[in-house]
Amino acid sequence: MFDWLDDAAARRADAGLVRTLTPRTTESERLDLAGNDYLGLARDKRVAGAAAAAALKWGAGATGSRLVTGSTEVHAELEYELARFCGAQAALVFSSGFTANLGAVTALTGRDAAIVTDAYIHASLIEGCRLSRADVAAVAHTSPDAVEHALATRRKQRALVVTDSVFSVDGDLAPLRELSAVCRRHSSALLVDDAHGLGVLGEGGRGAVHAAGLAGEPDVITTVTLSKSLGAQGGAVLGPRRVIKHLVDTARSFIFDTALAPASAAAALAALRALRDEPELAERVRGRASELSARLADAGFAVSVPEGAVVSVRAPGPNEAAAWAADCAERGVRVGCFRPPSVPDGVSRLRLTARADLSDSDVDRAVAVVTETAPPDARR
Amino acid sequence: MFDWLDDAAARRADAGLVRTLTPRTTESERLDLAGNDYLGLARDKRVAGAAAAAALKWGAGATGSRLVTGSTEVHAELEYELARFCGAQAALVFSSGFTANLGAVTALTGRDAAIVTDAYIHASLIEGCRLSRADVAAVAHTSPDAVEHALATRRKQRALVVTDSVFSVDGDLAPLRELSAVCRRHSSALLVDDAHGLGVLGEGGRGAVHAAGLAGEPDVITTVTLSKSLGAQGGAVLGPRRVIKHLVDTARSFIFDTALAPASAAAALAALRALRDEPELAERVRGRASELSARLADAGFAVSVPEGAVVSVRAPGPNEAAAWAADCAERGVRVGCFRPPSVPDGVSRLRLTARADLSDSDVDRAVAVVTETAPPDARR
Repeated sequence: MFDWLDDAAARRADAGLVRTLTPRTTESERLDLAGNDYLGLARDKRVAGAAAAAALKWGAGATGSRLVTGSTEVHAELEYELARFCGAQAALVFSSGFTANLGAVTALTGRDAAIVTDAYIHASLIEGCRLSRADVAAVAHTSPDAVEHALATRRKQRALVVTDSVFSVDGDLAPLRELSAVCRRHSSALLVDDAHGLGVLGEGGRGAVHAAGLAGEPDVITTVTLSKSLGAQGGAVLGPRRVIKHLVDTARSFIFDTALAPASAAAALAALRALRDEPELAERVRGRASELSARLADAGFAVSVPEGAVVSVRAPGPNEAAAWAADCAERGVRVGCFRPPSVPDGVSRLRLTARADLSDSDVDRAVAVVTETAPPDARR
Repeated sequence: MFDWLDDAAARRADAGLVRTLTPRTTESERLDLAGNDYLGLARDKRVAGAAAAAALKWGAGATGSRLVTGSTEVHAELEYELARFCGAQAALVFSSGFTANLGAVTALTGRDAAIVTDAYIHASLIEGCRLSRADVAAVAHTSPDAVEHALATRRKQRALVVTDSVFSVDGDLAPLRELSAVCRRHSSALLVDDAHGLGVLGEGGRGAVHAAGLAGEPDVITTVTLSKSLGAQGGAVLGPRRVIKHLVDTARSFIFDTALAPASAAAALAALRALRDEPELAERVRGRASELSARLADAGFAVSVPEGAVVSVRAPGPNEAAAWAADCAERGVRVGCFRPPSVPDGVSRLRLTARADLSDSDVDRAVAVVTETAPPDARR
């Protein structure tokens, strides 16, 4: 029955694209530069403690979908405070950033709509576009001109422009102000996935949409994750109140999904409050990313210039990237290895993510290990 | 920009299809017959305690996707024990049942495949079919003959038949043995969403696939949720080892999603062990569902005959269903209210879910309240 899977597996092995799950232990001595816990809050006592307390108070699961029994006071508080923090009218919590993106894109478009996307948007947004049945045009990366052309030549009146704020592979930034201006000239709404911006960019970590002066605008929708800077799990959509009400009534990935566990909602809320209390966390993680990038560039690597917390280093190929990352891990530094289909341009990379709680010696160690394990042709 | 949303909202209001989020408190005195915590394990001390301990040990979030930093020893243990319990070769944990279904359906099909589905499958399976780009035929509900006809007349060689085991609206059961026989006659794989079967059906709650003698079969894939009988959050795919490896390498909703929070994985594992220790839980919830159904039928309502934990009661229309459910809630009994688009046949219903920990007086109270709040034309 499934013999074709073996052929597919052999082809992936030949192409250097086999993936392996390697469960981590708590005793790991490794320096983690692969995760997305940008502010170091996942293990913060306030955050982990809030998760534990909520599990004991509410139970381990939400027991149902948000519209049946899954909405607790914690979900409501989180939505209220998240919207306030980011400057949006309202927020809606989903069980993941993935399902938040599916829900937002599909509920706001449909057969009678046009979607224009940056070519490098996150996989979950791509899936949302596919599900939407809208006319979809994926245009050149970070190009307001390309977006404008696509909007001007669209065949459907209703339109949505979709982009990441910080792109997850290279850490570069979408031109949000310019995109918003283009959208307004062409009567389109703008949806921004700020998964890698929340907690990292903007005043006190309010995100890239806030930094661009677009928070609370009536034609802008933001999606975020609760699993990166906020150290928990889940996702949310932020926007005008009528958009949020529309999602409650129509977003299939909201209606037909079990609600986020109360422990994860409580952890995200505690992390949000920690970020409010320590607005310097956002600046700190950006500083660490800049240091990593500058020092790896000095060492001769093709390194991205980070707008947020993500630094990418080009590798000669997928096999070399996997071996490089494995060598780093063996030397005690865990870095990400991005290969197709996780890289839109097909170029394999190491991906290093900074954290606000990295020490000077952590940065020294990371740069030394990445340099010493580099394959011969990794330098420019 | 979003004026069309107000028109859509007005149309939903006219049709009785507005949904409202009502956050619950911990102090609620309500009898819950709406959630999916079938075994009453979400608030069990072993389960909630395991969630709390895991949050403190591992942190509130998994910090990354499963393939980067998100796989912990807890995820691996859960996958091992879940596969053993259900009689499958291997298991893969996703952040939700929704994303597990998306991943399984899309990774096992594609443009060069045919999918045949029961017309009443869960929304997440429908989304998976839409994303797959396969030829999709949705055939008559619980009809092996209809499936056989669709398989015999398909245009693509590779095929997947997709069904729920227990259908979530009426609680009726798919003819799994017959479907499997049909699949084998026509060289198709079979994917069963056993979200409402795990913990409820089969020997000690091993699920409907196990009960049908199909566990561990090389051509059968099962998806489950960790958020119903197991009282936590998340989902999983169970099947042959090569299928699981294929999902790790190719399922986009696995690769591009943050891993399930360690607290939720630990809670599901603790619930699985509780179920192993108390195999009578499964029988108990089925008994309570049968009682509820029989007594409501005696009272004159059009009630489904439950195969699992779900009992549905037909309502005259969506407005009546919403008012009936609201009246029950006011009288202290929380029941589900299923209206379009949550009902494939367009018929609005109350949905009552039994729990293993319901007492005799809980059942008495539920029957009395549903009966006394019934709209005039709700009886047959």
